[in-house]
Order: sequence, then structure tokens, then C-alpha cells
Amino acid sequence: MRLRIDLAYDGTDFSGWATQPTLRTVQGTLEAALATALRLPEVRVVCAGRTDTGVHARGQVVHVDVEPDTLAASAGRATEPPLDSLLRRLNGILPADVRVRRVAEALPGFDARFSAVWRRYAYRVADAPELVDPLTRRHVLAWPRPLDLQAMNAASAPLVGQQDFAAFCKRREGATTIRTLLELSWARDADGLAVGRVVADAFCHNMVRSLVGCLLAVGEVRRPPQWAHEVLVKGVRDPAVTVVHAHGLTLEEVGYPAADELQAQAERARAPRRM
Amino acid sequence: MRLRIDLAYDGTDFSGWATQPTLRTVQGTLEAALATALRLPEVRVVCAGRTDTGVHARGQVVHVDVEPDTLAASAGRATEPPLDSLLRRLNGILPADVRVRRVAEALPGFDARFSAVWRRYAYRVADAPELVDPLTRRHVLAWPRPLDLQAMNAASAPLVGQQDFAAFCKRREGATTIRTLLELSWARDADGLAVGRVVADAFCHNMVRSLVGCLLAVGEVRRPPQWAHEVLVKGVRDPAVTVVHAHGLTLEEVGYPAADELQAQAERARAPRRM
Repeated sequence: MRLRIDLAYDGTDFSGWATQPTLRTVQGTLEAALATALRLPEVRVVCAGRTDTGVHARGQVVHVDVEPDTLAASAGRATEPPLDSLLRRLNGILPADVRVRRVAEALPGFDARFSAVWRRYAYRVADAPELVDPLTRRHVLAWPRPLDLQAMNAASAPLVGQQDFAAFCKRREGATTIRTLLELSWARDADGLAVGRVVADAFCHNMVRSLVGCLLAVGEVRRPPQWAHEVLVKGVRDPAVTVVHAHGLTLEEVGYPAADELQAQAERARAPRRM
Repeated sequence: MRLRIDLAYDGTDFSGWATQPTLRTVQGTLEAALATALRLPEVRVVCAGRTDTGVHARGQVVHVDVEPDTLAASAGRATEPPLDSLLRRLNGILPADVRVRRVAEALPGFDARFSAVWRRYAYRVADAPELVDPLTRRHVLAWPRPLDLQAMNAASAPLVGQQDFAAFCKRREGATTIRTLLELSWARDADGLAVGRVVADAFCHNMVRSLVGCLLAVGEVRRPPQWAHEVLVKGVRDPAVTVVHAHGLTLEEVGYPAADELQAQAERARAPRRM
């Protein structure tokens, strides 16, 4: 059987998502906890969105395949349902900076990575001293100058759509940099923070942080709004675009289609993207 | 001249507010930063509400008296107004877990402690796995069982008013335990957390954490709602009331009267409280 696990983590003290020998990663930490909870020598999970070092998640989704017998046996003498027991035991094993929020049997055809149709990130900025809150300093960027969100939205709008984001990506050999950006917009939240909402079918490496770095330059009026689009169409990285700090970035949510579309979406997503 | 400083801090790594030799405290840290920024050998501040070890603040208020010449000289060659310069320099000196949010000249008669008419605290509880967010774990209590806020509100209501809170206070020789509780209520916030809102003219030591400890027992239906009032009227500490963890507690706001009442309020507050 396949399980869907929803989790949240504070990325500060992790070397990103993907398991690496000798480094503390979220995947490595979760897999070790699952192996302990399920009494297995090794467990492999697949995630919806690999987050970089320092990036957080509130809505990360993974799947893991387990034998029903293994799950039932792992619960031991617990009287609660096996999935409730697994949730409770996982959070007992995991360190405080990773929390499992939900464990459920996955719907047929569900694949945490390939069934996903979009990933939503938030980038949070406190751009005035009265907005800086030490209690949120691990996931909110303190910015010394006020940001003009109207200018940032004007700069963001022409980037939406299917585009080649080569100018905002760290290139990987043989991998496409074409992505469909579904939303890129800025608004003040209830606390007055400037929050960037970034939704795409998928992201390439460094993409959100490069986009935000470019837009912050527009927000503090060092660059005109059209600069962002000019960088995009050039198609090469512009050294004037800084990759902004990772700690302001959080993977908030992953979108999946309706139950009867999970399988078809996974098949579509496995095919290479073309313009 | 008297300055009003509004500040926020993450209390996790502090031994509370009040300066103590050899311990890291918020007052000690702020006073040292002020001494550096103002180029003085020593600075003394007065705060609105002394927070215990592990308790946070978003709306702490202090006052400090400085010579206008000292302030002007400390700004050096900065071209911005001296109070803006002080704000910027203080945040440059202070560690990341204390942030000054505002520095202003105090209104005539203002005293951070004695002019205050109320202090508002929030106690935050995540009472389900899906509500636990590792990014807020330093200021939100994770509670393993769901809370019935209706029962907690029923228990809270009879505690409001001027009462002797001896049963919920750590007694200090010669000090009264009479306080006026202006509000004690529970509601879900936008994220679904259970948030206790506690407002009083002043608090005695441990009072909020004891009240919350009592109410959590009611919330998980280990005790009936009337238990809280029964404890209060007995007037002695009940060993069944636990003092709940400090890290869920945040001083959110301090209330001051209108400008023309600041002086009179300070005089009233300096007089001892009587039933």
C-alpha cells in the first residue's frame, strides 16, 4: 500500500531536502524515522518539491510504499488505528524541526511528485523595523528599505505563463528550464509583511530566490518594473540579479488533481516538457 | 528627555527580563546595547511588564532618560534624525532575538511601568498534529489532545474582575495578589490555533501560566469548568494546577491612557492596591 505523508519543517538546520551522505537533510531524517517506526532496515520516500538548504515547508507531501503487514505489525499493541499510531510514533521520533501533520492511505494512482500539478511557495519580507518580529526571524527576511509592492506586481505580471526561465535558473546539464508560472504576486499580509505568492507547475533550481532577488531591486526602486521582463527574455543569468536569502522562502502547498486524474497527471508529468 | 522604546524578543535564550549578574537577560542585553549606542558607561531602562524566563514579547515598552546632548552626539555624522539613527544603530548592535521596533520621544508624564493601564498576553496552543508548525514551535505549545474552547471559556468567565489571585500566584513577601483581570477568553486564530487572550491591570508572578494550566485541564475535560473558580476562591495554590510551559506565552501589547492622563495614572499606579 502507498501512504501519503504531509509534513512541515524548519529548514534552518537542514542541508536541504535530498539525502546526502554525512549531511543532515529532511529526507534523510524522515526516512530514518520511518525506518524506526516501521521496524524496517531502510525506507525510501518520494517528495513533491525538493527544497534547498535553508528553505522551509508547511505543505510538503511525500509518498512511501509499505506492506500492509509491516504497518500493522509496527503498531504493536496500540489500540488506535495503525495510521494514527504511525503519525503519533513518527512525531515522537522526529526532531522538533520536522513535524508530520497527516498520514493517510494514498488514493489509487497517487504519486507525490508526478501527480502534483502545482507547487505554491511564499516569500516573506519585513521591510520596516516595526514589522520585524524576532519570533519569525527564521522564515521572514528583514529588509532595510521599504518596498513598493505595486511596482513589484507590475514587474511580476509579464513573467506569468509558460516561459524559458533560464535567466533565473541554475542550469543543469540536459534539463529544460521551461516552466509554467501560474501566479507571481505581492501583497501585505495581516501583520503588514510583504508576501510574494509564487505558483508554478514546477521550479528549477534557485528559480524562486532569483525571481524574488530581481523583484526586490524593483521594489526599492533601484530598477524599473520592466527590468524583470528584460532579464527573462535575454535568457541568460544577469549578474545584477541576486539570489535572495533562502530563509524567507517556504513551500506552502502542493496541488493535486481530482482522484480520477492522479494517474493520468503522473503519466503526463513524466514526459519531458517542450515549448 | 525621556525616550519610549517599543521592542520585541524571542525569550527562548534569555533568563527572563530583569538584569541578573552572569545571566543573559533582555534588560541586560538592551541596556548594554543602549550604552554602546549612546556612548555612556551605563544605562537603566524601566519596562512595562517583566517577563519570566522563556516568555516572549511583541509589544514590550520601556522608557529611558537621556540628555538631549548625549543623544545628538551619539548620532555622529548620520544625516537622518537622531531617533532614527538610534533605532538603526540599536538594531545593528542587538542580537537577532531582540529587535527594537520604534524609538520616540515620550509624551510628558509617561512612565513605561506606572502609566500602563493594562498588559495583554496571548497563550498559543496547537492541539492537533495538523496545527503543529515547526516554524512557530518557539512560541506555540504543542498539546497532544484536542481542547474544548467552549468549556475553557465557561471556566474563564467567572475569573474576570478584581479578585485575589493568590491561588494562581507565586507569593512574594509583603506583595498583594489582588489584580483586576479585564479579559480571559479563548478563540481559534486564522491558522486554527487555540489562543488565550489575557488582559489585566497587572500580573503577579506565574499568574498567566497557572491560569492557563488550570484551563487546559478543563479544555481536555479532565476537570469541569467550575473547577477554575473553585480554585480561585480557595485562595491557596492547588497542586493539581500545573504551571504550563513558558514558551507558549507572549506579551503582546501594553495599554496607556490618553496623553493628559499619563501622569495621573502613574500616580495612581504607584499607590498600593486594595480590595
